Amino acid sequence: MAAAERDVLALSGGVGGAKLALGLADILQPGRLHVLVNTADDFSHLGLHISPDIDTLVYTLSGRANEAQGWGIEGETWQALSALEELGGDAWFKLGDRDLATHLWRTRQMAGGVPLSVFTAAMARRLGIDSHIYPMTDDAVRTTVNTDRGDLPFQHYFVRDRCEPAVTGFSFDGISAAAPNGEVMRLLQQDAFGQIVICPSNPFVSVDPILQLPGLSQALVKAQARVVVISPIVGGMALKGPAAKMMTELGMHATAVEVARHYCDHYPGLMDYFVIDETDATLAAAIRELGVNVAVAPTIMKNRAHKQELARFTLDLARAG
Amino acid sequence: MAAAERDVLALSGGVGGAKLALGLADILQPGRLHVLVNTADDFSHLGLHISPDIDTLVYTLSGRANEAQGWGIEGETWQALSALEELGGDAWFKLGDRDLATHLWRTRQMAGGVPLSVFTAAMARRLGIDSHIYPMTDDAVRTTVNTDRGDLPFQHYFVRDRCEPAVTGFSFDGISAAAPNGEVMRLLQQDAFGQIVICPSNPFVSVDPILQLPGLSQALVKAQARVVVISPIVGGMALKGPAAKMMTELGMHATAVEVARHYCDHYPGLMDYFVIDETDATLAAAIRELGVNVAVAPTIMKNRAHKQELARFTLDLARAG
Repeated sequence: MAAAERDVLALSGGVGGAKLALGLADILQPGRLHVLVNTADDFSHLGLHISPDIDTLVYTLSGRANEAQGWGIEGETWQALSALEELGGDAWFKLGDRDLATHLWRTRQMAGGVPLSVFTAAMARRLGIDSHIYPMTDDAVRTTVNTDRGDLPFQHYFVRDRCEPAVTGFSFDGISAAAPNGEVMRLLQQDAFGQIVICPSNPFVSVDPILQLPGLSQALVKAQARVVVISPIVGGMALKGPAAKMMTELGMHATAVEVARHYCDHYPGLMDYFVIDETDATLAAAIRELGVNVAVAPTIMKNRAHKQELARFTLDLARAG
Repeated sequence: MAAAERDVLALSGGVGGAKLALGLADILQPGRLHVLVNTADDFSHLGLHISPDIDTLVYTLSGRANEAQGWGIEGETWQALSALEELGGDAWFKLGDRDLATHLWRTRQMAGGVPLSVFTAAMARRLGIDSHIYPMTDDAVRTTVNTDRGDLPFQHYFVRDRCEPAVTGFSFDGISAAAPNGEVMRLLQQDAFGQIVICPSNPFVSVDPILQLPGLSQALVKAQARVVVISPIVGGMALKGPAAKMMTELGMHATAVEVARHYCDHYPGLMDYFVIDETDATLAAAIRELGVNVAVAPTIMKNRAHKQELARFTLDLARAG
């Protein structure tokens, strides 16, 4: 394969996004991949600063992720959690022993004044990652999920309540005062990226918080690089997570068409290509009616080769004249 | 054996004290043992509140202690520490995975306003302990060790620097403003204890901080119960820890006589009996010259039976007309 000449920016939430990011990292030259990661799912638990999406990226790109489980670290142990339960501590959020070290050290460093972006870069380097992983912002942005059981902090909705409450909306507290990652903004202004990819992550709680950071979507629109979005909805279902359930509860059809419409309506001029799965090929016409270029590819990434193939397809699309 | 009719108060540091406390707990009726524990070794590490002596008591009395190792939990695992090292985090203080849960939950509870004494009581109850374990104070008292390498916080001297620096003195920062545990003071004022035992703990860094709390030694002198002190120095050596090394560095002979003299000089009228090991029987006369009653017993507690025997010997002494 031809090595990509220019750097690539990927926007990502957790698991689905990390799969494509791994494919991109595999096929790009070392250091060419830049991943801007959602931090609106971050939360404080037992006094620890937890950044679930960043950790998923770091664990995935460093080869530590438990891919079968879909979260956490391969070979993780649970002694601390078991002891915590014995003491009567909050154990609804599953903290593995090695994962705990990440949160402890991050919390400690941040308490000492180290920004999340600096900690994340150091952690990625320590774990042997040559891609660049950036939190979307160093400021606190926190997703609140509005539900039929009231407003819930994201992790309470997502983990504690297993996405059971019916969603009526979202808010991203702190977003209007949050500064997007400075390095990514600088690179965008320099038109340093040859391609921009929005990974198959949840549009509402993973990608929207990134795109709604002040100035970020405008900078993406302005950049010369094409923006390719991969649909996280395949055959009316989310491959991972509550995206499809959320769409239904919000009164939308859970289809790739509605995902495309969401991006068109909220971020006009942003999307150059929308990639849907082969299963959804019949939806291409409806999406083109929105004024979007559509590409059809196998988007279900069951193994490393699938990830690399989708990454290659995406980059070729972004590069195409 | 005859069950003790009245409650027993034991003053204790870490490992050596915990051994005798376990013997006492074994032979007393449930709930009769009250252990007042040194907290001047407590420190903050990675943002966690660590109380080494309290944890040694709790782990020992709940049957969780790693007795062969002399600290920590039996069957402990070290995944978090290994991951922390991988991230470049401070790993000189050996935090086991289950131990970590104790520190996390304690830190979290204390940040929410729960006093250390309340947390400790709840933890002991959760782990099935029917003895009462009290931190000597809920206020922050911190031992500084004055050494030939400068002043060192206790755990830096003890763990990080392996007791290598030569000691010239000690200070207990915060002690003059610290209130001794209220429940123990109340029980002392009510003369609720039939016996008072000072465990074979380090006189300088484990027992002195307890006895120097405002009003504490006076309350012990005033109480009708006999105070029995067990020498931590046997045959010129400390069974555990740096007590003998400290004595030599402070210009004292490392003998049980000097331990007795230390208590006589600093806490006149406190000690009713001083217990020395059989090995040191020849020192009895020199100790009696200090005006102290001496008793000789096997004080090296190598197994559970030894602990119970020394506990029984101590209590009989405290009870004797």
